[in-house]
Amino acid sequence: MNTFGNIFRLTSYGESHGAAIGGVIDGCPPGLALDLNFIQAELDRRRPGQSRLTTARNESDRVELLSGVIDSRDSDSVKITTGTPIGFIVRNADHHSSDYDSLRDVFRPSHADFTYQAKYGIRDHRGGGRSSARETIARVVAGAIAKQALSELGIDVKAWTAQVGAIACERDWTRLDLNKIDDSPVRCPDLNVARQMEELILRVKGEGDTIGGIVAGVVTGCPAGLGEPVFGKLHAQLGAAMLSINAAKGFEYGDGFACITKRGSQQADHFNPDFSTTTNHSGGIQGGISNGMPITFRVAFKPVATLLQPQETVNLHGEAVTIQPRGRHDPCVLPRAVPIVEAMAAIVILDAYLLNCKFPNFKSQI
Amino acid sequence: MNTFGNIFRLTSYGESHGAAIGGVIDGCPPGLALDLNFIQAELDRRRPGQSRLTTARNESDRVELLSGVIDSRDSDSVKITTGTPIGFIVRNADHHSSDYDSLRDVFRPSHADFTYQAKYGIRDHRGGGRSSARETIARVVAGAIAKQALSELGIDVKAWTAQVGAIACERDWTRLDLNKIDDSPVRCPDLNVARQMEELILRVKGEGDTIGGIVAGVVTGCPAGLGEPVFGKLHAQLGAAMLSINAAKGFEYGDGFACITKRGSQQADHFNPDFSTTTNHSGGIQGGISNGMPITFRVAFKPVATLLQPQETVNLHGEAVTIQPRGRHDPCVLPRAVPIVEAMAAIVILDAYLLNCKFPNFKSQI
Amino acid sequence: MNTFGNIFRLTSYGESHGAAIGGVIDGCPPGLALDLNFIQAELDRRRPGQSRLTTARNESDRVELLSGVIDSRDSDSVKITTGTPIGFIVRNADHHSSDYDSLRDVFRPSHADFTYQAKYGIRDHRGGGRSSARETIARVVAGAIAKQALSELGIDVKAWTAQVGAIACERDWTRLDLNKIDDSPVRCPDLNVARQMEELILRVKGEGDTIGGIVAGVVTGCPAGLGEPVFGKLHAQLGAAMLSINAAKGFEYGDGFACITKRGSQQADHFNPDFSTTTNHSGGIQGGISNGMPITFRVAFKPVATLLQPQETVNLHGEAVTIQPRGRHDPCVLPRAVPIVEAMAAIVILDAYLLNCKFPNFKSQI
Amino acid sequence: MNTFGNIFRLTSYGESHGAAIGGVIDGCPPGLALDLNFIQAELDRRRPGQSRLTTARNESDRVELLSGVIDSRDSDSVKITTGTPIGFIVRNADHHSSDYDSLRDVFRPSHADFTYQAKYGIRDHRGGGRSSARETIARVVAGAIAKQALSELGIDVKAWTAQVGAIACERDWTRLDLNKIDDSPVRCPDLNVARQMEELILRVKGEGDTIGGIVAGVVTGCPAGLGEPVFGKLHAQLGAAMLSINAAKGFEYGDGFACITKRGSQQADHFNPDFSTTTNHSGGIQGGISNGMPITFRVAFKPVATLLQPQETVNLHGEAVTIQPRGRHDPCVLPRAVPIVEAMAAIVILDAYLLNCKFPNFKSQI
Repeated sequence: MNTFGNIFRLTSYGESHGAAIGGVIDGCPPGLALDLNFIQAELDRRRPGQSRLTTARNESDRVELLSGVIDSRDSDSVKITTGTPIGFIVRNADHHSSDYDSLRDVFRPSHADFTYQAKYGIRDHRGGGRSSARETIARVVAGAIAKQALSELGIDVKAWTAQVGAIACERDWTRLDLNKIDDSPVRCPDLNVARQMEELILRVKGEGDTIGGIVAGVVTGCPAGLGEPVFGKLHAQLGAAMLSINAAKGFEYGDGFACITKRGSQQADHFNPDFSTTTNHSGGIQGGISNGMPITFRVAFKPVATLLQPQETVNLHGEAVTIQPRGRHDPCVLPRAVPIVEAMAAIVILDAYLLNCKFPNFKSQI
Repeated sequence: MNTFGNIFRLTSYGESHGAAIGGVIDGCPPGLALDLNFIQAELDRRRPGQSRLTTARNESDRVELLSGVIDSRDSDSVKITTGTPIGFIVRNADHHSSDYDSLRDVFRPSHADFTYQAKYGIRDHRGGGRSSARETIARVVAGAIAKQALSELGIDVKAWTAQVGAIACERDWTRLDLNKIDDSPVRCPDLNVARQMEELILRVKGEGDTIGGIVAGVVTGCPAGLGEPVFGKLHAQLGAAMLSINAAKGFEYGDGFACITKRGSQQADHFNPDFSTTTNHSGGIQGGISNGMPITFRVAFKPVATLLQPQETVNLHGEAVTIQPRGRHDPCVLPRAVPIVEAMAAIVILDAYLLNCKFPNFKSQI
Repeated sequence: MNTFGNIFRLTSYGESHGAAIGGVIDGCPPGLALDLNFIQAELDRRRPGQSRLTTARNESDRVELLSGVIDSRDSDSVKITTGTPIGFIVRNADHHSSDYDSLRDVFRPSHADFTYQAKYGIRDHRGGGRSSARETIARVVAGAIAKQALSELGIDVKAWTAQVGAIACERDWTRLDLNKIDDSPVRCPDLNVARQMEELILRVKGEGDTIGGIVAGVVTGCPAGLGEPVFGKLHAQLGAAMLSINAAKGFEYGDGFACITKRGSQQADHFNPDFSTTTNHSGGIQGGISNGMPITFRVAFKPVATLLQPQETVNLHGEAVTIQPRGRHDPCVLPRAVPIVEAMAAIVILDAYLLNCKFPNFKSQI
Repeated sequence: MNTFGNIFRLTSYGESHGAAIGGVIDGCPPGLALDLNFIQAELDRRRPGQSRLTTARNESDRVELLSGVIDSRDSDSVKITTGTPIGFIVRNADHHSSDYDSLRDVFRPSHADFTYQAKYGIRDHRGGGRSSARETIARVVAGAIAKQALSELGIDVKAWTAQVGAIACERDWTRLDLNKIDDSPVRCPDLNVARQMEELILRVKGEGDTIGGIVAGVVTGCPAGLGEPVFGKLHAQLGAAMLSINAAKGFEYGDGFACITKRGSQQADHFNPDFSTTTNHSGGIQGGISNGMPITFRVAFKPVATLLQPQETVNLHGEAVTIQPRGRHDPCVLPRAVPIVEAMAAIVILDAYLLNCKFPNFKSQI
């Protein structure tokens, strides 16, 4: 259950304060040129300490590919995939395990401390252990590889911070300049809205509190025909991928929850002669299968549970205790969630693409 | 990809106008007494033609269990599971295939006609073929079996229509009387709100149009410890299950999308000495693992795409055509979606329960 | 665990004396013309009662396809696959359940009675229930469909009875006329050897005893590149498939067990300039991947455990009892095992073929 | 396809001359005390260079566990599992990559060079790349962990060299002293036979040739009820596991191929009053499910393909070339295959045990 995907599969391992985070990527097509600098750059987008909006932890998070690639003729920073599994490792460096000693026997509110203990009878209490968002490092590595495969196929994945608290940018992505996503630390492409979001995050941080929001995403260049009908619907796979990210509370695609107040006649996407549609309420997916239009979706993230203020809770014995978190934590996960959302979307789309390559062309017709 | 689940697994088959809908349920625990009348009653809740809110199609939908059970001593309507796979079949009876002849070469707007053709190069055009909601019959059968296993374990699954268009009932389920869900044809337990929903649906139907809404659900009696961390988070599995239902556009659990405007300090669920929590913003799941509190979730359904009014669209050759649907269709899927949502939730929870039974009791401690 | 395969997947259900045997075939490529008469003919090859070498049970075993196909223009006996799951059912007809009443509380020696009871705490005692070889009906249906897909790809699967007791035909298949396999009831293509095998089987049958043997198989026309390295080696998948057939006790491919007394220098298959090899000790597979040469393998089947003579055994309480089987049983499974071996081989090879279609052509080179 | 198992799952990665061999073990039960020295000792049994019978390569093969464990109170060399995935890495140290430069464009006879090239269009030619037996390091690590879990459950797995060329030891394992397996470098518990095997291997080595043989195995203490009927039969899973080991050519369990010349009346295993059986022709498995008797099996290994003598072969262009292997290679894989066979058996049995834990106790009876 630490494996995700059907053909392009990521198996991940690692705890927040163990020796390393890493994984194995199976099913990557052979002959793909991987730019190692791009993979590292994606990790850097996820890295803590990149701006005053994120935690001050300074994790260098250097990835090493251990297998499944071979040197290219051209460049030291380019490796060629061979079709065999790509093992990778990111050493954990900046341990402050002692920060967590006081939490050894304590269940923090709205964390996974209690549920891990209930499930396993044992847990690694340091920094959340396996439930830490550090686990998403493995996803970003796999996503960076998937993105490069998709790029060869003309498919592009973008995500951005669409809302923080009540501050939201334009919902219609075609009216945003997605090249500006990384121009603000909050990763909202509308720089005016981005500034308001940043101010809100800093204010909330100053109060020792946290705030949630929405990451929006779009996949362009995706051919029609991806996704499996019934249980493997493309949006069901995307939804599962997004909901598996730490702190995610909801997922919608196309018009999503907003469609419920509309009539069917208002939601119909009419065809052009080339089978594109005049509108895209569907979000690029019909019956669970991509229709060639951009795939749009949104993910809700809760305010992170770790507050920098004293909290009442209980210990292993059910006794009341007061905790005062001392670790370094994000007041808002949104800016760092953006590359993770992109990574999971890229993994899902590439996997669906590869799964769809499986048919020989039998040509009998009815 | 027509299989769902890990230990308790449903594989389904069947098209709207083929010979039958059916499936195979693998991994059902042995020794479970199955009440066949209950399974049929669940199918009847899903059946078209049950009220003036639903399509006039009169499908009797009788299920036959073909294997995996053996007679009980007590009653003809009770069978005992043996642990081997339960095959089942529901014959398609009320065919009006000729209703669809005019649609043979046409792609209806916001249907799966075009995407199936793009994926497979061939499709069964009669009544949507495999993309028809008739496929959910198999889910309801499996769900009815899962519900009976869960009942033995003290776990209960309930869903209801929480919103139609802009008309919504109380969100806090503890303030609703869930015993009244089936007292109204729209399956909203607040009978006053139910009446308003019914009026809206009938008005929309009169206009040849359709309307969407929200189904809410709650799982009670679920022990702490279910769900797999990382990719197999319990809410990710629930989300994938719900999003795989026809017409679903969004999923949220706990406070869902509403949490984004709250502060972390407002969202913390504080522990009681017995490890229950004073509030349940989390929706019964922390870090992807159940915490013993009720599991709450909501699913958004779009207005159905089939309108009873003329629509412009294109045919296989991209040429403009006008269609006038003649089949019998629901103006609103919500009432019939309720048992399907319950079925999928029951399957997910039972599967998670069985997957969690896997550990021998090693007792080494740190 | 009642599902086999990765892309082309068979899920089967059914007990010997339940309502039906059947299954669901998922992942069958669309646009394939299925000859229903061929599927039925394959079932007839597996059917009991076809000769005096097999049991006298007269099972008509008519298969009905329930989904996943659509009428062809040309013939009522030809259906076209649509890419959606193919459900099928074979009703159980010739019930002599009362033959088994005396076995309700008895564990027959070398049968699965005790182990099913140990595993599930309950069992369907009639005719072996799920452990009956009647379950292989589902495999033959799926295999007949796989064979037709393979035929379109130029791949052919053949199996034959290579040994009964000590009587064996030539091991080198290129010196046999495989068109004669069905010319003898024992399905050995060397008709002279076949006669001796038949005599032996009839003699053993006359003694109320049973006898085992070897089925050999060959896959021709298989392209190089099928099979997954490491755990999914093509011969590991073939081996698992064969060993999952009732009464199978061993599997070998290429020179198999015979290679252990040879030197490496005697076993090397040298390349021709076209990359075919001058010999085929390897059996068409190197490193788990097909090399384009014929794939050869052999499966050992034990003498069936049901004897037509009194046997001492124990009942549920461990008390000694004597049983006198009254059902109708085969003295030798080999003749009827041949189509089952072919079916499983066809499923494995088609699945490997489809799994191998997954790669886009990235062309970076080292 | 680089993942093995259902609940206890090993995903492996790594090439012979890449940076590392490693893997991820998912589904290991929590609370298990792991003796790191035992894991290393198992690796040492697999290691090259341990005797004059094996290659002179000196690979230290030190394993590091990266996650899924936490310190124990008692000892630095004992770690406690937490139920989360155990990532591990073994760095490749003793690279002689240049030994393989001459093989860059050459397909060695009876190796996987050609098939990898055919499958992927690219390959890591150094030392066989992913097809190298170095990959089995990951299996031995996972097997060493599985063995420790099985030990807690009272289950023991043993394997030994039963035959080299024509020299075989006693087949009835109860007449061997399995404590002596590691007393000879060839790992045959009959030390007299072991000496003859060693002489044969050294003679063959002196001729620049290689020789094959049989590894036998037995699992004791296994409870009745493990294994899934139909496709997941315990012996089918064992067979797939063994056949996935490099150089394996055949698998049999119980009396295996030898049973084909016996009558059914000679093969019946009669029950004792405690449901043990007086004989064990079945090899501890009936109908694919363990019956509580020792599970016995045998695996045939071919003579390794790499000869230390000149060989004629072809290059990428189909042109004739002569190769003179210069790497260091085993004349016989049997001694080092023993711990690998044990590892795979341990993984299969533990996985079956965990899968069998999945049923709650419903108690309805027929």
